[in-house]
Amino acid sequence: MTAQAAQADQLASSHGHLVIIGGGEDKERDMAILKRFVELCGGPSAKIVVVTAASAVCARMWETYDRAFRDLGVTRHVHLHLMTRHDANDEDLIRDVLDADGIFMTGGDQKRLLAIIGGTALDAEMHAALKLRGACIGGTSAGASAMSGHMLAQGRAELHPEKGSVSLGAGLGFLHKVVIDQHFSERQRLSRLLSVVAQNPYLQGIGIDEDTALVVERGVGIEVVGEGAVTIVDGRAMSTNVAEIADHATPELIDVRLHLLPAGSRYGLPGADDRDARRIPPPLLEFLENITKRNPIS
Amino acid sequence: MTAQAAQADQLASSHGHLVIIGGGEDKERDMAILKRFVELCGGPSAKIVVVTAASAVCARMWETYDRAFRDLGVTRHVHLHLMTRHDANDEDLIRDVLDADGIFMTGGDQKRLLAIIGGTALDAEMHAALKLRGACIGGTSAGASAMSGHMLAQGRAELHPEKGSVSLGAGLGFLHKVVIDQHFSERQRLSRLLSVVAQNPYLQGIGIDEDTALVVERGVGIEVVGEGAVTIVDGRAMSTNVAEIADHATPELIDVRLHLLPAGSRYGLPGADDRDARRIPPPLLEFLENITKRNPIS
Repeated sequence: MTAQAAQADQLASSHGHLVIIGGGEDKERDMAILKRFVELCGGPSAKIVVVTAASAVCARMWETYDRAFRDLGVTRHVHLHLMTRHDANDEDLIRDVLDADGIFMTGGDQKRLLAIIGGTALDAEMHAALKLRGACIGGTSAGASAMSGHMLAQGRAELHPEKGSVSLGAGLGFLHKVVIDQHFSERQRLSRLLSVVAQNPYLQGIGIDEDTALVVERGVGIEVVGEGAVTIVDGRAMSTNVAEIADHATPELIDVRLHLLPAGSRYGLPGADDRDARRIPPPLLEFLENITKRNPIS
Repeated sequence: MTAQAAQADQLASSHGHLVIIGGGEDKERDMAILKRFVELCGGPSAKIVVVTAASAVCARMWETYDRAFRDLGVTRHVHLHLMTRHDANDEDLIRDVLDADGIFMTGGDQKRLLAIIGGTALDAEMHAALKLRGACIGGTSAGASAMSGHMLAQGRAELHPEKGSVSLGAGLGFLHKVVIDQHFSERQRLSRLLSVVAQNPYLQGIGIDEDTALVVERGVGIEVVGEGAVTIVDGRAMSTNVAEIADHATPELIDVRLHLLPAGSRYGLPGADDRDARRIPPPLLEFLENITKRNPIS
């Protein structure tokens, strides 16, 4: 099998991956996470589009990832430089996305990213790439937060969870019923994630450390790659007085479920074709089913 | 009723209290926690013994608490100045404990405290004071950690839980099946407490913030006083790979139960005579039964 045939074979069998990175991924040494992203795109010959719209310093962002992807042997990576929603709806400008094997969203500000690309032709093409062509969508820091339908838009990291200290916005919706936070252990954001879950028990919180990625293969399973851990905070069985207390007060939270998945963890859906994934611990089953769900294009 | 009769009445009806303080309690302004400690000792006419043995700067510690208790109107507080185990076994020296209404252990180093008083006549008299006379035992910082049977002796606060990063020692044993950490939110010690629980699922972790106290009334209930919160980490239903991983690796932790009890929280045992305590949320019942248990003198 030629390299191109192998790549075509891999893509045809791919269910689509999300590589959700907690920021600060290594871009110079072993680059374990970016290397994994490239693999999941189909290898060095894959076409990768880098979306820098989250950042106010797009050119510098592109330079960084241009060098990193080159160092990983990638030859067909391109910069999608968008300044406005008009750009994100410009079919000429976004043409590279139509046959991209991977799309990578850099850090910056997730509110800026969504303001520019949310609901545009680019947004629709990214969903089509993932869901119809099995492409790989990567995002780091702001690009990670932006992936869920409910997006952590803004919030202070207080010592304690606080009512009203966090605000959500509408994200890209590659995942649902979750909210994603990044730089998680490094910036001590558990309180902030608990603040979200206290007021939004419908959402499970996902906290991703720096240089760490949650890799989701739709319909198959998940994996944690890199140096840190992924923390999951599940408040669905919780009881709380958050509805009764004043703004900025600390809520009582009883029976929040917490899971810590260190790098190296792999979990497969029951019956999924991934023989080396471990069986799924029962408390994670529903979480796994949810985030690997093959949501249709809406 | 005279003030003395009222005090005798209160003491006779007291089941004994523990005031477990996360360090950094206010000693100059409203002193909510120390005021509560004095109340639970029976009021300003109570006899209070201050044990400074945890600290290498005993005289300075005593000055601080001497002033604070004086400012609260206390007149019968005394310094129990101990440098050695010999001191802690000296019946003359510890005579003040025999009729103390309250005993307060300052901060410092809990290993030092236990090395000096663990298993001595003073230790036995403190248990007798609590259990036979319904006295109040207070402790802050190191004095808080020292209260449980398994004591968090030493451990780094890492970004993530780490196998082998925390060591336990034998504490005073006023509480069992728990481990107590202090300066909890301020020093970001959740990972450290999770490290303990991961390797010792028999113990429930109690993290107490600065200027915050967990007040335990034996046989009755608990209350959180002060400015912060008490975090409880329960790993009894958890699954983990901690037995299989190498030292210093981060364990997988699935289904740790987390409870956050902000200041103002009160919980009473079912049927306990404390009408204004709220009912106990079911996930806290076993915890509450355990820490309010009237353990006999051993």
